Amino acid sequence: MSDEITSNQPPSIDFWFEFGSNYSYLSAMRIEEAAAQRGVVVRWRPFLLGPIFQSFGWSSSPFVLQKAKGAYVWKDMERQCAKHGIPWHRPSVFPRSATLPMKVAAAHAEADWIGRYCRIFMTKNFALDEDINTVEQVREVLAGLGLDAPAVIDEALSDARKNRLREATAEAQDRGIFGAPTFFARGEMFWGNDRLDDALAHAAGGA
Amino acid sequence: MSDEITSNQPPSIDFWFEFGSNYSYLSAMRIEEAAAQRGVVVRWRPFLLGPIFQSFGWSSSPFVLQKAKGAYVWKDMERQCAKHGIPWHRPSVFPRSATLPMKVAAAHAEADWIGRYCRIFMTKNFALDEDINTVEQVREVLAGLGLDAPAVIDEALSDARKNRLREATAEAQDRGIFGAPTFFARGEMFWGNDRLDDALAHAAGGA
Repeated sequence: MSDEITSNQPPSIDFWFEFGSNYSYLSAMRIEEAAAQRGVVVRWRPFLLGPIFQSFGWSSSPFVLQKAKGAYVWKDMERQCAKHGIPWHRPSVFPRSATLPMKVAAAHAEADWIGRYCRIFMTKNFALDEDINTVEQVREVLAGLGLDAPAVIDEALSDARKNRLREATAEAQDRGIFGAPTFFARGEMFWGNDRLDDALAHAAGGA
Repeated sequence: MSDEITSNQPPSIDFWFEFGSNYSYLSAMRIEEAAAQRGVVVRWRPFLLGPIFQSFGWSSSPFVLQKAKGAYVWKDMERQCAKHGIPWHRPSVFPRSATLPMKVAAAHAEADWIGRYCRIFMTKNFALDEDINTVEQVREVLAGLGLDAPAVIDEALSDARKNRLREATAEAQDRGIFGAPTFFARGEMFWGNDRLDDALAHAAGGA
């Protein structure tokens, strides 16, 4: 038995994601339910993919830079969303910038509303095809969650928290993250929505 | 109901692969059994990944060129092989050239021994860590299958068949294939070992 299982801490999974990433969308929409079924707690870890891709010398997403792969990805997304019963509309802008809502997510990653907040932004990008990188969107989403939107945004942009997204991105790079979604469970890295179930099984101690 | 289902032809899946590709290994080892369970016939379609990667401006496999992804892939392979009960030994040479055994595979892709032949070469590369691009290996494998090895090799190198691997590679490129394994089922493309089951379900008419 590992330390994690014998300790009093419930098993957890770190979910590294970004609002612009279509495969992150698939995971974001189902991770909390799937994790709860295994008694696993989700730690939401927003980070920016752009600086990671830039460190590889890429000017954009590989789905934009590689034409054949890009053409395939949208078909794959359509099928994967249908399979999991997740709504889908191909975004007219890809990858969509989301620095502001991501900053708020990073600053409040441990809030009890973080999962709902992230699912709403993901849905706006990948099912409603809306621009998400505006303060109006962030305010509206926060208010819709019953929160004091200006206070939440102010806190996210405060000296104490404003660098959290940048720090998370640097941490992602240090951990060897090269794409999203990426999961860490009991020290092991799992890349891609296709590994969500394996990662949860590993987190729960079953794999 | 589609034409394929109402016709007398059994449903089929086209399996595009290469002996140097580790994720092709995972599919090659289980595709015939998984397909048989769904009443699907496998069409083995060997092709060369090198020219495809070169057309993207890449000098090697992305697992070699992208350091972080490369480091992850071997861990992922270890876990995937354990999950499917497939033997695994990280090759000391990657990606391993296999032009000669691939040429023989392309020339005899419809032989009734093609699946066994491919599984043996895949196992040599990814479980036994052997050099596979030699005429001795090809002869030994063919003889082990009870075949007249010199005759099979001569036929593969004959004027009528010697260009089949090159033609298959050109066809792969025309079809928009950008990696391996890739499956085609009822006109739809599925990329990666992670999509093998979805592709088979689609081939069988269930998806």
